[in-house]
This record gives sequence, C-alpha cells and structure tokens, in this order.
Amino acid sequence: MTVTSAIPATMRAAVLHGPERLTLEERPVPTPGPGELLVRVETVGTCGSDVHYYRHGRIGDFVVREPLVLGHEAAGTVVAAGPGADSARIGRRVSVEPGTPCGSCGECRPGRYNLCPDMRFLATPPVDGAFCEYLAVHQDFAHEVPDSLTIEEAALLEPLSVAVWACRKARIGPGDRVLITGAGPIGLVAAQTARAFGAHDVLVTDVLPHRLELARSAGATTLDVSGTPLGRAGYTPTVLLECSGVPAVSNEAIRTVGRAGRVVLIGMGGDEIPLPLSRVQNYELELTGTFRYAHTWPTATALVASGAVRLDSLVSHGYGLAQAERALTVATRDETAVKAVIYPQR
Amino acid sequence: MTVTSAIPATMRAAVLHGPERLTLEERPVPTPGPGELLVRVETVGTCGSDVHYYRHGRIGDFVVREPLVLGHEAAGTVVAAGPGADSARIGRRVSVEPGTPCGSCGECRPGRYNLCPDMRFLATPPVDGAFCEYLAVHQDFAHEVPDSLTIEEAALLEPLSVAVWACRKARIGPGDRVLITGAGPIGLVAAQTARAFGAHDVLVTDVLPHRLELARSAGATTLDVSGTPLGRAGYTPTVLLECSGVPAVSNEAIRTVGRAGRVVLIGMGGDEIPLPLSRVQNYELELTGTFRYAHTWPTATALVASGAVRLDSLVSHGYGLAQAERALTVATRDETAVKAVIYPQR
Amino acid sequence: MTVTSAIPATMRAAVLHGPERLTLEERPVPTPGPGELLVRVETVGTCGSDVHYYRHGRIGDFVVREPLVLGHEAAGTVVAAGPGADSARIGRRVSVEPGTPCGSCGECRPGRYNLCPDMRFLATPPVDGAFCEYLAVHQDFAHEVPDSLTIEEAALLEPLSVAVWACRKARIGPGDRVLITGAGPIGLVAAQTARAFGAHDVLVTDVLPHRLELARSAGATTLDVSGTPLGRAGYTPTVLLECSGVPAVSNEAIRTVGRAGRVVLIGMGGDEIPLPLSRVQNYELELTGTFRYAHTWPTATALVASGAVRLDSLVSHGYGLAQAERALTVATRDETAVKAVIYPQR
Amino acid sequence: MTVTSAIPATMRAAVLHGPERLTLEERPVPTPGPGELLVRVETVGTCGSDVHYYRHGRIGDFVVREPLVLGHEAAGTVVAAGPGADSARIGRRVSVEPGTPCGSCGECRPGRYNLCPDMRFLATPPVDGAFCEYLAVHQDFAHEVPDSLTIEEAALLEPLSVAVWACRKARIGPGDRVLITGAGPIGLVAAQTARAFGAHDVLVTDVLPHRLELARSAGATTLDVSGTPLGRAGYTPTVLLECSGVPAVSNEAIRTVGRAGRVVLIGMGGDEIPLPLSRVQNYELELTGTFRYAHTWPTATALVASGAVRLDSLVSHGYGLAQAERALTVATRDETAVKAVIYPQR
Repeated sequence: MTVTSAIPATMRAAVLHGPERLTLEERPVPTPGPGELLVRVETVGTCGSDVHYYRHGRIGDFVVREPLVLGHEAAGTVVAAGPGADSARIGRRVSVEPGTPCGSCGECRPGRYNLCPDMRFLATPPVDGAFCEYLAVHQDFAHEVPDSLTIEEAALLEPLSVAVWACRKARIGPGDRVLITGAGPIGLVAAQTARAFGAHDVLVTDVLPHRLELARSAGATTLDVSGTPLGRAGYTPTVLLECSGVPAVSNEAIRTVGRAGRVVLIGMGGDEIPLPLSRVQNYELELTGTFRYAHTWPTATALVASGAVRLDSLVSHGYGLAQAERALTVATRDETAVKAVIYPQR
Repeated sequence: MTVTSAIPATMRAAVLHGPERLTLEERPVPTPGPGELLVRVETVGTCGSDVHYYRHGRIGDFVVREPLVLGHEAAGTVVAAGPGADSARIGRRVSVEPGTPCGSCGECRPGRYNLCPDMRFLATPPVDGAFCEYLAVHQDFAHEVPDSLTIEEAALLEPLSVAVWACRKARIGPGDRVLITGAGPIGLVAAQTARAFGAHDVLVTDVLPHRLELARSAGATTLDVSGTPLGRAGYTPTVLLECSGVPAVSNEAIRTVGRAGRVVLIGMGGDEIPLPLSRVQNYELELTGTFRYAHTWPTATALVASGAVRLDSLVSHGYGLAQAERALTVATRDETAVKAVIYPQR
Repeated sequence: MTVTSAIPATMRAAVLHGPERLTLEERPVPTPGPGELLVRVETVGTCGSDVHYYRHGRIGDFVVREPLVLGHEAAGTVVAAGPGADSARIGRRVSVEPGTPCGSCGECRPGRYNLCPDMRFLATPPVDGAFCEYLAVHQDFAHEVPDSLTIEEAALLEPLSVAVWACRKARIGPGDRVLITGAGPIGLVAAQTARAFGAHDVLVTDVLPHRLELARSAGATTLDVSGTPLGRAGYTPTVLLECSGVPAVSNEAIRTVGRAGRVVLIGMGGDEIPLPLSRVQNYELELTGTFRYAHTWPTATALVASGAVRLDSLVSHGYGLAQAERALTVATRDETAVKAVIYPQR
Repeated sequence: MTVTSAIPATMRAAVLHGPERLTLEERPVPTPGPGELLVRVETVGTCGSDVHYYRHGRIGDFVVREPLVLGHEAAGTVVAAGPGADSARIGRRVSVEPGTPCGSCGECRPGRYNLCPDMRFLATPPVDGAFCEYLAVHQDFAHEVPDSLTIEEAALLEPLSVAVWACRKARIGPGDRVLITGAGPIGLVAAQTARAFGAHDVLVTDVLPHRLELARSAGATTLDVSGTPLGRAGYTPTVLLECSGVPAVSNEAIRTVGRAGRVVLIGMGGDEIPLPLSRVQNYELELTGTFRYAHTWPTATALVASGAVRLDSLVSHGYGLAQAERALTVATRDETAVKAVIYPQR
C-alpha cells in the first residue's frame, strides 16, 4: 500500500443497528485491496434510500440484519493506493461511484454492469456505506473530479448519474417534450439533465410549492397537480420521466404520453403499479425502469463542469458526522429540505 | 375506372346490426376511388375482434352505432382500377392490408402509419369490412401475392403481420430465448415467426391441450400452465411475447423475464394490467405494446413463400358467406377451432 | 383557390439559362394545386449548390437543360390556398421545406422521404426554385414560423435542417466530443447544433481565419489546419461531421476518430474519397452520408426559438432580386462572405 | 492448480521464426494463472491471417519480431484449473475465444471488449497461439461446447463468430436481401449465418467455381463475377457483407446497395479503399467495419447445435502438428482447399 500522509488506525462511522437506531462508532480504517484506493470522505449526500433504511430497517427484500453504515453519495480525496492501484492518484479529489460489479458475468461483459447480480453497492446490505471518514474504492470507480467542481457537486454526481441514465434510456434529444412527475432531488436534477440533452419543453409536476419553485429556477415549467389534475393540463409529452414512485401518479402520467412516446420509471414505490395497457398498446409507448446507472460519471462530470447542470442549489442542509441522525430526519422536520449532506471530517 | 370482366351492380354482404344480429344483405358494389383497386374477395379470415364485435357490439371505445360489415383478413383478385390506379394489376391476386392511413400526419410522415389518428381500418366503426364480395382498396395496400401462396395464406398474412411487427419490436434474433403466453392464432403464428427471426428457444404456454399440440407441431416447446405454474418452470426468457391478454398471465410472465429483457404486450384484455414495477426496474426490462403493424407485408409474404412460416395449418374451418354467423360462433361450439375462414364467392 | 389580397398575374424571377447566364424575367405567378399554399417569398438564402449550378450549369448528373430558377432556402407569407389546403393559414409566415416527396413509395412509407426517388426539390432540374416572388408549396412542407424568428432565420431553417439531420445520424448527445471539418455555413451551423444536442467539446477546423473566428463566436474551439495538421492536434473525437467535401481532409479526419466513433459525411466533393479501411475496421467506426433531411423543421424551429442556435449572424450580405447574380458571386469577390440572402420583393 | 490427469512438463509447438520458417519445437506446458484453465488442444483451424504471417512475417503493423506460435481457432478439453478457476470444468470440452481483454478500460466496461487496446490475442505478436498441445485460457473465454458438436465444429466457432458479429452489425433480419462478396471461409460461413438471421435472399459472388459451388450447397444464390460484372447483375441488396478484401470489389459492391442499406467491411486488404462517396450520401448508406467480435460464442454455438449453420463441410484438409507447414500452404497447392485444420495431439 502506498501512502503519503498519516492515516489513523480507526475512524468514526455512523452505524445503523435497526429502525431509528443510529450510533456513532469507532471502526478500523479499511485497508485498500488490490486495485483499490483509500478515500478520505469529505462529503456524503443523504438519499431517500438512506432515510428509508433508517426508518424501516429494510427496503423490500434488502433487510438490515447486521449493523450497517449508510450513505452512497460520496466524494473526497485519495490518501492511499492498494496493490496494483495507481499511486499517482494520491492527493487527487474523486467522486465515488458506489457500485462495484464483478466484471465478468453475463451482464458485466456486455456493458450492463449495473445489472450485475454480484454487484457490491455501498449502503446496501451487507455492504457498508460512506457515513464514515475513510472508504476503500476500486480505482475504476473513484472518478477524477475537475477543480471547478465543489466537493458537494462531486458527491452529487451520484444522483445526477441517475438522471443521466434515465435521459439516455429515454433517448432524449432536441424536439422532445418531457414530463417529470415529482420534484424531489431526482426530479429536479432530471429536469436540468433533460434540458442538457436538448429537450425543448420540460414540465415538472408536484404538490409542494417550494419544490415547484425550485423546478422553475432550474428552468422548467411547472404544474401544481393539487390544483390542476395532470390529465386536464393538455400537455402531451414525448417522454415521461416518472420520479414520484406513486402508483396513481404513474398511471395518470402514462395516460398523457403521446404516440410512440417513451416512459422511464425511476421512482420506486411498491412492487406493482396499475399499467394503462390500452394506452401502451394503442399508442405503442415504450416503457422501461432504471436500476442505478452505468458509464455515467464522465458525462455527469462534464454536465456540471460546463454549467449545463447546477447541483449546488440542491444542498439545503449540511451536518457533521455526529449529526447524521439529524441529516436523515430533517425532511420530516422541515418541508423545504431538499438534500442534506454530511461532512464526515467535521 | 378500368375494368376487364363484368362486375355486378350489387353484392352480398354480412352486416352486423347489433350484438348477435347479423344479416345477409344486398349492397352496391363499391366504385374504386382515386388510386384504388376493386378486389373480388375470395377468402376472409375471422379474427377475435370480429367475434367480439359480433357478441358485444363494441370493443372498448369503438361502438357499432351503424350497421357494420365485419372482416379484415382478406385476399382476392383485382377486377378493376380506379382513376390513377395501375390497371396492369387487374387479374392479379392480392392480400389486403386492412388499414389506410392519411399519409401526411405527424405519425405517417415518420413512417409510423399504424398510429395515424385518421386511419381508416376495415371492420372498425364506421368503416365496413370484408365479409362481402367486393372491396375497394388503395393500391398501395393491396399487396401482390406470389403464385406459391394459397388464397387462405394470402388472407392470413394479416395475422402474420401482427407477429412480424411484434418480433421486430422485440428485436428478436439468434441468441434469443422467447416466451409466448397463449397459443391462440396469434401465439401460434408468433412462435413460427420468432423462429424465423432466429430465436433459439421458443416456449409457448396455454391450458388447452390441442392448442399446445399445435404449438409443438409449429416447432415450439410447450408448457401446460394448468399443471405447472409458469413461475416454477425455471424458464428465463430474453423476450416475452404476451398473447393471452389475461392480466394475471401477463404479470406472472413478466416476472420470469431475464435482465435487460424485452416484453411486447400483444394480447388485448381490459384497460389495465398490474405491472410488476420492481421487476421492470431491477431488471431494466423494456416493455411496449403493439397496435396493428406497419411495413410488414413484404416480409410476411417472404416468410410464407420461403416455407419459414406455415399458415395453412391454422385454418380449421371454412364457410360460405351465408354461414358467416357460424364462422363467428364456431369457437364456442368447437374447442378445437383455431381459425375459421369465409369464402365470400360461395 | 382562396385568396385574401390581390395577387398579380405575373412576377419577376431570376432564371439560369446556362453557366453564368442569369436573367431577370417576367413569369406567371403559379396557381396553387390541390393541398398547396401560395407563398409570397420574402427571403431566400443562396447555397453552395446554387453557386455551383450558376457557374457550371450542372452538379454531377443533375444538368440544367431547360432554363432554371435557382434558390431553395425560402421563407415568406401565405397569400392563397389551393383546393383542399387550409385557407386559415393565409397571412401566416412560413419557412419552406424545399422537397416534396411522392408520399407512397418504399422510402416514403417507412419515413425516409428524403430518399424518395420521385422527390421534387426546388432548384434541382427540372424543378424551378425560389429566386422569384411567389412559390406554390404543399401545405405539409410550408412550416409555420413563430413570431420570434426573423424572416432570415425562417429561410435559414433549411441549412439548419442539414445540421439537425447530421447530428441525429451521428446520435450526438452529452458526452460526445465532436470534430467538424470545414467552417462554411453548414459547418458553422453544425457546430451550434452539436452543442444544442449536448456535445461537450466541439472542434472546428478550417484554413480561413475569419471563418474560424465565426466558429469561435459560435462557441466552438477551433484549429487552423494551415498551421497545425489535424493529425498532430491530439484531438480524438467520438463524432466527426465532415463538412469540407475535400477528400484529403475527410481521409485525415477519419483517421483521428476514436474507437466505435461515428462519422457523418456531409460535404459534397466528387464521386470518391480514399477511405482509411484499416481505421474503419480496427476501430469499428460507423460511417454514413446525409442526403438533405427528413422531419427536421419542428426541431430546427425550436432550436432557433429557444436561442440554442443563432442563425442571423450567418447572413453577411443581402440583395434584391435584380442583384441575384451579385449574390451568387459575392463569395468570389469577398472572402469574408458567409451567406448572402436575396429579398425577392425588393 | 487442480489437475486430474498426468500433464507432461513439455509439449510440441509449431513456431514461426520468420517468413516461411516454421519449426516444430519442444516448449514447456504453460501453467494456468489465476482464473485460467489449461486446455489440451485437439483441433486448431488455420486462418488467412496465419497464412499471411507465415508467408510475410507480418500483417500491417503487427510484425513477428520474436518466434511466434500461430493458430487462434482452437478447441480441446480442460485438463487443469488455475487458482480461482472452476475445477469442475476439468474434463469438459471447450471452444477457445482467442482474445482476452483487460476488462476495465473505456472499451471493455461498455461491452466493446473487442476494441480493448490491451487485448491479448492468440497468434498476434507477441502472444503465442494454439499450434501446440496445451493452452492456458481464462475460464471466461473457454466456452463450454455441447456434446452434439464435433471438435472441428468447436474450433470453427471462431470464424463463425466473425460472421455472427458482422450479421449483428448489419442488423440482418427477415426482409433483408444480402450480398456477400467473396466465397472464402468467412463468406461461406456468413452466407449461412445471414440466412439464420432471417435474410430472404443471399447472393454470394466469387470467381472460383468450386467456391461458388460450396456457396450454393450452403443455400445461397451465386454469381460468377468473372463472367457477369456485379454492376450488371441487377441485384439491389439491403445489406452488403464485404468478405473479399479487394478494394475494387468493395467499391463496385457498395455501388449496388439500395437506399438506406448497410455495408459491413469484413475482408482485410490494404489500408485504403476508394469509397463511392456520392452513393453513400445520395443513398444514405451506413458503413462499418468489423474487428474480431464480442459476445458471440453462445449464439455461434446455438446456431451450430440447432443445425442452422453447418461448419463441418468447410474442413477440406486435416494434418498432424508436424505437418503444420503443409496446412499453411495447402491453399497454394490445391485450389479446392477451403479450411485446413491441425490436430495437435496427432
């Protein structure tokens, strides 16, 4: 292992022991394995999945059986290199792509590594996440960050990757009219990303005024569906990016998509949704869902570096590691919260 | 109008006046308009939609308000040419593509003419169909038939087109493992078509033994899902062609599709189906539905001419025009009926 | 025919009788046929093909045998509607898509109408063009123009369409690094269009300083290849848009494209180019050429309306109809000329 | 290392020392590394590239500087497993995919592993090939072979992979009319593969009567272009698979392809070909080249197992390892030679 600065033997980590039981603990600093870099974590975003694990101790079939460190939107600085890893990267800032695929299965070889059945993904049981001071990451998934990005932006390349992946799946380009249902962090990033892909019109729906306000400042048109039902708005998108995860919203939104339109189901929400079959058939809609992302970091990085997508405005709250529990619960206390980030070195 | 043989002034037609009210009537022989050919109809297949209109007087939003001639799977011989139509085609056999699109809307111009909102489609209210002796058809949609095809095969290029379209949407090719749910006429034709597209394995499911037997003689492997539930069969298709139209079947079948698999929903059955969202997302399945077909006749014709697809074996019953009602009800009397055809000139 | 204002019986037209023989003549104002609108032409751009016909009396196999009116980049105002055309459009401004396909051949039906062998295209022998006061255009190809566009921009939607079509063929999107060889009008428009499609880097090459300056003000990076040969510049594009039409430039540029890159050959220049086969094979490059465009007007219009593409800066010179010859020769007198437009009503 | 049977310390290998200098030598049997299997080689095909290296000591930039073992179309039986490799595969027959990519570069991660710049490929300097008794192969690239395949077929899955890859690149399916220029081993396999992908018509051209005869027995139509020039044959393909590598043939063949047709340049032959630019542009042809293949073995295996492609008929000559030189020169002595295979254990 190549190291340049002193690395402590132990570090602090916020560990989940069950629903709403989070403790700050001392853990060994990981040793980077073959091809891995050790990253000093400087910023970690909190995601809806972190909040869900915190509250319920599970997401669907993924159950927290052993103590689990949450957090998978991380950025920091390389401080050591494991065997075979490039030690020239020590001292450089990186954005962490949180999933490491096996690299040789029937999904990885054709390039769909996000579907790798043996994927190890941060903060998905039993793999620990990034609410801690140090993280060992394979060098292929510790992506270089240009100086022009803030460390918060570097961390938020992860949710931006979700949006980039969805826009690619939807094949968004100039001429497209996009509907985004749900103005949470993913919807807000997707609105900007759809524009960067060339979409002409982007309409974002939600029921929370401050979220719609954020969507408007991200350059989108908005519709408060608590007032006007979407079905009456007369908007016929070529593309729907469903970010709400609410089955009734999905159903109503799909019913507005124009002929030969494309639908990407991003929001998670239960095992089933009522699919308007006759609309899908009569209009030959194409639907798909997204599961994380693949090959998105270079594009996401360039979108932020060029100014096409702005991520800083998403960060509404910041906390030290000892306040991780506050970060995970701020959304319940403060309706205007968008994205809370944690600074593990504080 | 160019004519070679004597064409009578009137013809017989089987006319639907309401649920289960079909009468044989004398009607004027149509005069071919600009670009149209007059076709003496020799064979017309009966389709599930004809049966549905006959029984219920409607299909969803399409309601039979005026008397309607059913039938849209037609073949015959050209006997006259309207203004601007090619009179050299008189005397030639043709297979009728039953829909005539507007040709200049936002769906037609880019080539998706099956989605034309102004489509005029045989036997879809208020457009009369082919259970009659003569039909005027635009020459672009009266497709030349090689001598090697029987007139029944020429008529059944219509259901074969449904299968060709679905296989294209599914991008079936060598290496694919295909699941077809439902061994009705469309499922049986789709099984052969999937093979002709290069699929390696084709598994067809149904609960009727004689249909499964037909699927086997079409070269497919079969599964009787009244015995073994599909979910337990251990078959992981890359492509699902859903031909049953039964929501529970669709749902169960989608849950078997492998990662990055493709699903084409062909069978009609109600307005909604319960979509297994988490499977669609976690496996990034691609779904679409089919609405008729576009640009399929040349390929369908070649598939039959080369022997890759056999259509004759689908014809289980034949009737004269006066027996149209028997043709529409044979399926309820005889469980082994597959496809009844009508010979209007008898 | 529906008319609102007085339309004269005759009009002026600039007619080409052979190489460098252009005369201003009085001709009958055309009568709009079925589905056609009569457009009072307000602006027409001059294109390289117009200049080539003017100088040589031919372009390859297209030979000017009868007197020919040049010009195919036209915009104006609807003043009359032929039978079956929408008279509500009288008084509205339109941008003219100069090709009218047959609508029913094997290229038109699948949506590739630009490849229609029976295409009638303005200023392509024997079809007269738009260097005249009135033009009859099928209403499907007389595209509505929003008020925010100038009449010059409306005319230049034609060259923009060339660029939109090329960017679609190249599947340009975020993450792409684009090389554009040649900073003529098409190259300059393509540079802006590639950016609007999301390309991160756009490098434009030329040897004329003022053209490179225009490329820079269009937001591109530039390379003066009279100084640094492209092959030494170290730029490895994912996409090449070849706009020079110079065989040696094409060859050298293709040799810089990265693995799995895409090449679109837009510039016309002789019948053959030396293709670097081993690069195409070893890097599995995808190449194609463009022939005009299809389905581009709505997108081109939106790109200008949103400000993503600016066309006004291309117009370097303006002339009345009597000065058509000056418009066609300005490029030989003034090296800084980019695009000359003609105002037929002056 | 797990071993079941006695493996000798040394083996025989046919080693190329320079143009036409091949010697049989004793070399150490390789030790399988991490993830590798040791394969006892039972059959190796000879390929045009082997012959080229034998004659000229180089192929373009690839120069034989050190002694090199030729041969990359190999099949055999697993006899040992290196660390981390699956020892359950010992005793099983495998077909060897001859290239091992790095697995983590910008080409490998997105699934284009054939374009990996760090590819190690058998019999490509400096990597030794398979004209020897034992070969160490990464287990991911030693593909299981069903019992129904002969060992010769197992070896020839390599050239079949070239054809599968080309047919995929050309997106061949039902409705396609395919032209194959050159009836060498690749052309003959491509003819069968194109049919298996659903192509309706396959025309193969060559000048050697016995090769054309083989093409006919493979189910293709043929044209002897020594008699009728291709340009006069009146065949307008939708797809061209260029297998001759002769620039003039490529040029003439491309000029016959129909509008929106696809061209795949498979045959190698010099650095450049004269590309008919105006045909490419006016017809918007899509061209690409192939470099080896990726993800083809499962499909190739299934095509042979199902009987859709027959490979045995390609084998015209067989030799022991000591006769490797005869295998590499048989084509010069016997014009009817198609594919010579070597049996290293003899």
